[in-house]
Parts: sequence; structure tokens; C-alpha cells
Amino acid sequence: MAVYTTLGAETLASLIACYDVGTLVSAKGIAEGISNSNWLIETSKGAGPTARYILTMYEKRIETADLPFFLGLLDHLAAHGCAVPATIHDREGASWCEIGGKAVALIEFLPGVSPSRPTAAHAHAVGEALARVHVAASEFPLARRDRLDPPASAATLRRCGAPALGRIAPELAGIIDVADAIASRWPNDLPRSIIHSDLFPDNVLMMEHRVSGLIDFYFACNGMMAYDLAVTHAAWCFDGPGTRFAGDAGMAMLAGYQSVRPLDAREQAALPLLAQGACLRFIASRAEDWLDTPDAVQVTRKDPMDFYRRWEFYRTAQAGAFAAA
Amino acid sequence: MAVYTTLGAETLASLIACYDVGTLVSAKGIAEGISNSNWLIETSKGAGPTARYILTMYEKRIETADLPFFLGLLDHLAAHGCAVPATIHDREGASWCEIGGKAVALIEFLPGVSPSRPTAAHAHAVGEALARVHVAASEFPLARRDRLDPPASAATLRRCGAPALGRIAPELAGIIDVADAIASRWPNDLPRSIIHSDLFPDNVLMMEHRVSGLIDFYFACNGMMAYDLAVTHAAWCFDGPGTRFAGDAGMAMLAGYQSVRPLDAREQAALPLLAQGACLRFIASRAEDWLDTPDAVQVTRKDPMDFYRRWEFYRTAQAGAFAAA
Repeated sequence: MAVYTTLGAETLASLIACYDVGTLVSAKGIAEGISNSNWLIETSKGAGPTARYILTMYEKRIETADLPFFLGLLDHLAAHGCAVPATIHDREGASWCEIGGKAVALIEFLPGVSPSRPTAAHAHAVGEALARVHVAASEFPLARRDRLDPPASAATLRRCGAPALGRIAPELAGIIDVADAIASRWPNDLPRSIIHSDLFPDNVLMMEHRVSGLIDFYFACNGMMAYDLAVTHAAWCFDGPGTRFAGDAGMAMLAGYQSVRPLDAREQAALPLLAQGACLRFIASRAEDWLDTPDAVQVTRKDPMDFYRRWEFYRTAQAGAFAAA
Repeated sequence: MAVYTTLGAETLASLIACYDVGTLVSAKGIAEGISNSNWLIETSKGAGPTARYILTMYEKRIETADLPFFLGLLDHLAAHGCAVPATIHDREGASWCEIGGKAVALIEFLPGVSPSRPTAAHAHAVGEALARVHVAASEFPLARRDRLDPPASAATLRRCGAPALGRIAPELAGIIDVADAIASRWPNDLPRSIIHSDLFPDNVLMMEHRVSGLIDFYFACNGMMAYDLAVTHAAWCFDGPGTRFAGDAGMAMLAGYQSVRPLDAREQAALPLLAQGACLRFIASRAEDWLDTPDAVQVTRKDPMDFYRRWEFYRTAQAGAFAAA
């Protein structure tokens, strides 16, 4: 949540001039994105209302070689009617360029706000929107490997080491064994497409109960669609940071998803394990960040225990987490 | 440059409902302001283009008791045709309210971008806009004391102590004596009004060479108008962080200012001393921040030596800094 780079007005104006979007009216650095800087840009073509765009500068974690995948995916999904921002191409047709050695892209602005207390109606709409992405993305021609599957999470946790994990919380000392067990049982043969794989509420824009935008596709990769649904379930269907499962939201999300793309029997049966794998992923990445971040700046760390408790819920509830009460 | 508080979509929507501005369409935390959090808010009243506002939450440094002064000043200046954002009053007529114990205000959005490489044409327009504020503000009925005049800067530097100042840079060890000398010669009887007193380029929005907005009046206070001009001169008329004086910008700023409000002979004569006092103020506040900020987060500190070098320039050049070449 920061703007890592200062872009002068003159630099911005000459960048905007590469696109057929009119002249620069306003530019505000916005506090969104964890691996890039973003500006809300307003331009004018003379009379009439101004137009708005998001300018994204790719800072760390994102490799330029992945940009054709990420930006091409946005264009593909937008062209297939999904609620994602299309990229704006410059006068030469390019979807990104470089400023001072960093890649930047101009992206459609979408209205809406992220729900901070998601309801069952929100969850239903998100399930539906996710399924539409899965269906539309199945024809996308580029590929990107999942770098955060259970074997990768197990490796991350092993790098952290049981003693350090146990210092975060005693229960975490045993999580490496859990990760190995999940990785050994992990299915790899469920139906696949491109998956978002990070669809937390702050990556969804909504107007009332309608999804107006799915954003931040920078973890998107090839993967099992039911796993993406499980990630989204784990990210949305608990009250606040705790473990209180919001069963009505969970059921609504499944119903919304299946109204577009019904799960097959093997996907249904795999959901409890897939949800545990989803929790594992966030436990691993948050534990690594926690141990890498000095105590002094502690406020920016996310507690890995939130997803430890969600993992415990899925392990205990099993199919009950995905069945009507 | 941060958003210090998370405001949920539901909280924002119910806040916006207190105003006659339509319903919430979008809200983005923006990276502006050093003592408050800001959101760029978009609302809709149905058909037609959406409207934009800045929502400001007052975090630290700003006392609620000062809000009638700051917000009333914006309304007064906007009503007198100055390019400043007016505040939006809620359905009960209030210009601010409280959320979770913090004051918030909804403020008009103004287009424009801050020049990062100000030209003489920019400086002329800013001088003109500043003079308009001085003239319009002279009738503003509320008052606020200047807490950052040379005696206050001298006291700040004395609190830092010569040894600590000398560790920032050897030249700074002698700055307390300089501050005392400036304070002892400080005029207090030049023409007064309300002054902005912090009109750096990032507090000015421009469209081409026209000033579309003066913002961030949270240092505004009663003071000598020529001193405010000297602050603005010191903030705008040097290339980058260094000492290279941009004489053409300086002359253009004076000409722009005097096209609206001519300086009298005593104000003209006082400019070299007033400009030294302006530099002193930023040396003192930056030195204090420098010494208060741990080395580890050094990137966010502003170097007090930038304004030490500008002070040296004004001391050496004297009236030459304000005369045509």
C-alpha cells in the first residue's frame, strides 16, 4: 500500500501523450497494490466529461517477462465480457512501456468499492464472476506456472525452519509436516484454466451487490479451477481476521459459482483438501514476511495465524464446510 | 505521504450519505498530505457524469480547534474567487464531522497536477494566485497565530542543540546564532493578512500555466504578506534540491504577485531578510525531523542542508536576489 516512485507532472504528461486519451488533467498516487505503484489519472479530450485510468508501475516481484501474460489476460477477459479492466494500448499498439527502467501500463478505471464486511449477496456475485473468468480464460493462449502450490509452500516453510515458525506461535512449529502431508495428497488432475489465485475482497470492486471489477491479476497462473474457488472461499467466508465461519456466505459463493460453471463430483470431493492447501499458501507467505520484517515495522505484517485457524476449520469441518447447514 | 487509517466501504458509504452528493461510486486512498489521510471519492446522482471530492481525515499535528479556521478559510477564499477547494457542508450545515474519534471533511476536488520542474510562467501564475489569496483573506474574520516564526525556529534549533546539529553537517553547528540574529532583526510591522506559509510546488495544482488549485492550507496563519511571498520564492525558485537560483522564475514570481498587489517600499527592502527567515524555518523543522527519525528509515527525511544553502544564497545576494539581472 504505497507509491514507491515519484513521477513528475512533466514525465506523466509526456507518457500520456503516447496514448490517444487526451491531455493530462489530474494524477493522484493511490495507496493500492503491494508490488507496484499506482496513479489515478484523469484526462480530457476537450468538451465533455473527463476519462479516468489507472497507471501502474511495476516495482518489485513482477517480472517484465510476465507482462504479456498479465496484460494480455486482462484484454482477453475484458473482450469476453468479464468485469476486469482492459489495458489501454499506446499509439503503436503496445500495452506497456518503460520509464526510467521500470515497466508501466495504462489500465481502464473501473468504478466500485471493495466490501469490508462481505455479505452472502456479495459472495454469490463473486462466485459467479470467478466462474465467468474461469470459463473465458480457458481459451487464453499464454501460460504461467503456479509458483505457490503446496510443494512450493512446503519449501517456503522449510526455509523458515520449525524453530523460527514456533517463535511466531507454538502451533506453527508443526506446520511443515502438515504442508508435506497436503502436498503428498494434492490432486493435479482436476479441470484447469487460468486462475486468479488471490481474489481477496480488496481485489474486488462492487457497486451495491454487483461485481464491477476484479483487479490485481498479478498472481494469476495456470491451475485447477476448484482450487481458485477454494482460495476465494477461504479469503471471503470468515468474519474479520478470526475463524468464525460465515456459512451463509460460503454456500452463496458455491451457488453463485455453480450457476455459471457446475463443479464435477471429483472437484466437489476435493474442496476440503483444496481449501486446506489455500490456507497453507497464505500461512507460508505470511510467515515468511513475518520473519523477514523487523519487529519495529510490525504494523505492516499480516498475522499468519489467521489462516492457521482457517486451516484448522477446514481440516475439522471437511465436507461440512461446503454443505448446506 | 500515506493513508494512516483504513476506512471500510460501508463506513464511507454511510459518511457520504450525510451529504447531498449522491451515492458512493469509488474511493481510493491517495498518497498526499503529511498530517492527514486522504481519499479521492467519486459519487453519482444517477444519470450524467460522476462528481469527485477529496475526503480528508485529520490524523496528527492538526488540532480540531483549528478546523473552523482552516475550513472556514477555504470557503471564504473560494467564495472570493480564489483557486482553492471549497468544503462541502453536510445536510446539517457542518463542514466537518467525526468518525471513530477523528475529524473528517469532504472537500471539493480540483483538477491539475503539481509541476515538478517549475518554469518562470508557473512562478508568475503562482505569485499572482498568492497575492489574490492575501487580498481576499484580509477580510477573513478568524485568526490563527504563526507558530513557526524566527523566534520559534530559534527555539527549535536550541532544543536540537549545536552538537547534534553539527553532526548533521558541520556548518549547521553555527545556525543557532544565525537564528538569533534573524529573530532580533525580524520586522513585525509589515502589512499583514492570512498567509499560506507553505506554498511549495506540491501544494499547487496547475493546468498548463494556469493555477487550478492552491491546497494544503494547514500551516495558514496570520502573518506578514511579504514573508509568505519570501517563503514561496525560497520554495520555488531554485533548481531541484540544490542552490542554483532560477532568477527568471524569481523575477516572474515577483512580477506576478505585484500585478495583483504591489509591494510597498518597506516590504521590498525587507525581502532579503524575510527570505532568510523562510529558509531558517525549513532548516529548523527539517533538522528536528532529521534528528527525530531513526537512520534506518532515512529515505523519508528531507535534508535540512537544502535550505541552508538557500539561506546562504539570500544572505550573500541580498537585494540582488529580488532585482532584475
